[in-house]
Amino acid sequence: MARLTNIDSFFSPRSVAIVGASNKKGSIGNVIFKNFVETAFEGTVYPVTLSYDTVLDHTAYKSVRDLPELVDLAVIAIPAPAVNTVMRECVDIGVPACVVITGGFSEIGENEREEELKSIIRGSDTRVIGPNCVGVYDRRTRVDTIFLPEERMGRPNNGPISLVSQSGAFVAAMLDWASLNGIGMDKVVSFGNKIDVNYSDLIMFLAEDENVEVITIYMEGLSKGKMFMEATAAASLKTPVVIFKSGRSKAGAAAAASHTGSLAGSDAIYDAAFRQAGAIRVYSSEELFDVARIFQCKKAPAGTRVAIITDGGGSGVMATDALEDGDLTLAPLDEATKSAMEEKFPPYCSVKNPIDLTGDADATRYDVALEEVLNDDNVDAVLLIMLFQVPTLGDEVVGHVISHSRRSDKPIIVVSSGGKYTKERVRELEEGGLVCYPTPERGVRALSALCHYHAYRRKKGKKG
Amino acid sequence: MARLTNIDSFFSPRSVAIVGASNKKGSIGNVIFKNFVETAFEGTVYPVTLSYDTVLDHTAYKSVRDLPELVDLAVIAIPAPAVNTVMRECVDIGVPACVVITGGFSEIGENEREEELKSIIRGSDTRVIGPNCVGVYDRRTRVDTIFLPEERMGRPNNGPISLVSQSGAFVAAMLDWASLNGIGMDKVVSFGNKIDVNYSDLIMFLAEDENVEVITIYMEGLSKGKMFMEATAAASLKTPVVIFKSGRSKAGAAAAASHTGSLAGSDAIYDAAFRQAGAIRVYSSEELFDVARIFQCKKAPAGTRVAIITDGGGSGVMATDALEDGDLTLAPLDEATKSAMEEKFPPYCSVKNPIDLTGDADATRYDVALEEVLNDDNVDAVLLIMLFQVPTLGDEVVGHVISHSRRSDKPIIVVSSGGKYTKERVRELEEGGLVCYPTPERGVRALSALCHYHAYRRKKGKKG
Repeated sequence: MARLTNIDSFFSPRSVAIVGASNKKGSIGNVIFKNFVETAFEGTVYPVTLSYDTVLDHTAYKSVRDLPELVDLAVIAIPAPAVNTVMRECVDIGVPACVVITGGFSEIGENEREEELKSIIRGSDTRVIGPNCVGVYDRRTRVDTIFLPEERMGRPNNGPISLVSQSGAFVAAMLDWASLNGIGMDKVVSFGNKIDVNYSDLIMFLAEDENVEVITIYMEGLSKGKMFMEATAAASLKTPVVIFKSGRSKAGAAAAASHTGSLAGSDAIYDAAFRQAGAIRVYSSEELFDVARIFQCKKAPAGTRVAIITDGGGSGVMATDALEDGDLTLAPLDEATKSAMEEKFPPYCSVKNPIDLTGDADATRYDVALEEVLNDDNVDAVLLIMLFQVPTLGDEVVGHVISHSRRSDKPIIVVSSGGKYTKERVRELEEGGLVCYPTPERGVRALSALCHYHAYRRKKGKKG
Repeated sequence: MARLTNIDSFFSPRSVAIVGASNKKGSIGNVIFKNFVETAFEGTVYPVTLSYDTVLDHTAYKSVRDLPELVDLAVIAIPAPAVNTVMRECVDIGVPACVVITGGFSEIGENEREEELKSIIRGSDTRVIGPNCVGVYDRRTRVDTIFLPEERMGRPNNGPISLVSQSGAFVAAMLDWASLNGIGMDKVVSFGNKIDVNYSDLIMFLAEDENVEVITIYMEGLSKGKMFMEATAAASLKTPVVIFKSGRSKAGAAAAASHTGSLAGSDAIYDAAFRQAGAIRVYSSEELFDVARIFQCKKAPAGTRVAIITDGGGSGVMATDALEDGDLTLAPLDEATKSAMEEKFPPYCSVKNPIDLTGDADATRYDVALEEVLNDDNVDAVLLIMLFQVPTLGDEVVGHVISHSRRSDKPIIVVSSGGKYTKERVRELEEGGLVCYPTPERGVRALSALCHYHAYRRKKGKKG
């Protein structure tokens, strides 16, 4: 069974000890200490170190035993030979949560040291993330144990996407990328050698968290398959779980074994297990975030019938191809829907799905088409392609789309390919709650995940 | 047979007539005229219009017959009913090339008008791009018949990638996107109803053009399959041809028929034909440019054995999976290569392919690894993953990579995922001639195209 004991202390500690806090600029203990004291972290932070009397003007303590209170979280960033001593102290005084940043355990063959660490926490309520990890990032509470300085790795704003990964490098690259692209994240964990807190614990915990709307996972392999299946199946009924599993190929599995010691197992087995547990599987980091982002539309399509509206016929054809790849169907529009559009559009527009408003489309055509298809009972979702290069397409179309999206319980997913002008319109649409993609293929892939996730939930008897 | 007569006049005219040039701001005839007179276009430009005596201070002429010289190119942007009269005049006086922007032909059922246009040019040497198109964009010569204003559609700088597409909206979106992303393009054509100049003509022409290093194509269907095959097979021996063919699915094919009247035919037939002709098939606009860009590395890998070097083990696993998808193999490193690295690296680095320099990698480790694998006869190409979030990785690694790339005839393809700092390093690498991708999957996909293209050329007996 997944174990939730004290997991919340990793994300919402009222007090934190940084063991190994340092005044040496750029050092691991310096970067982590600064992450807490130079941000809006609201709890108390204590430096614990043998080397200094004060760290950045905070009184330092020689040991966690000397602290004026029992801290909720200890972050341990000291040389490997000293880690187990400190961990023993933490367990003794009852620190609920420890992040062990330090490497130098089983990943370099120091199995004895790691076994000792395991035995220290065994039977206690002290939970451990790590060792050999970058740890925890929570923008809401400002817990940030990542030792990479801001100038190398941007920190994304708060948002609904959480991420769990064994690999620290993956977490660092994704946080950095998300910060550049304005994608909000909440509760990001890399647990390295994962001697205690594992995928299952975090999936269970994150599924119950009201700030987390989607759980994304990078994994190379699993040791406790049954526990993972149970946790994921339970979580999926509440929160979508999107998994990027690598080590698919034979050579990839061998590389994974050498990287994280993961026994990859047959890829077909993972595939079946993910499907059975209601998880959504993706095949690249780009797809991981494309799919994660779509759940921000917060709508549950009732089926897989999609209406495509476009001002570029070619993009309509591409999107139609992608529907088939994503196991979605072109919605068979009601005759009344088609006639209503036919009456209002020039004769060269196509009112058959995919609806082609053509290269002289204006905002009114989009307004009419959205009105009609959203009211059509044969339509479960709309893929709205807007190529803003078309000069007749006035900026007011953005407002039309946002208000249709607000009034309808059917998802409207936007595809817009282009440059500077397009980017500005996309930003406005996103501020209005729309989810946007740069190509038809990526938009449809995400929409497919949304539709099939809700179909799974309906099948399991839960409301969308 | 593809016909090359006068195709060069579309791209390198010494004189141009803009029929329908206008003073009305934002109108089609105004935007196009400005494209020529307000840029570095070096030839003479004449406005031809019945409505004005001067257009933007240039003396206007009533007819192409009245011009002081025979122009190389006429761009026709007047109402549809007047087009054929003007075209007759162009043929009579012997204008070599005409771009007919005007729509209102077969695409709206005006088949008679289009047949008349065809009959007017039949037997003449006057070549026509269009009607119903956005025409030609050539940044080098500043021919730009695209009627979308700069504020809606950015214009990319000059570069080695050419693009041919029936769809104008696709061309507009791609030019706009390329301009935002700093991707250089040369000789871009959208030919709309393509009554004359077609895919085959342009492929043959572009393959012989020294400024064009890769031909990209968007198509929904073909009418003259045999001619296309001949042109593409001949072109592929000199210049890579990358094709994004939509209308793959049954519903997509039906949508394509309604969009451009393309008879899509069986997708398997297209697939086999492209392969036989040496063309590279892709499945999205993103992939089209990912693959096109790789040919900028200007190296011909001798085989498909790839060495992966990474500082993030996870990315190494992802790349290894992607190799299998792309029909590439992990290079079996020579024992001497591995021992040389083993001597110089800490014991926790993995010197087996994928080579993992780990999260405390520095520039020297990259330097050593590149030196060793590039000298290994078992390696045909290098996929170099650099996660710049790692603070130990100094900026000087950029210089190391550039100098290895310059000295070796094996391609080094870079993968870097991240934010602001990463983007700056990627820009430096690109300025140094490296081709970079944001994910392992996209990098490997492009590398696969490079390797298999050169394998095709070797098979056909041409040198790489």
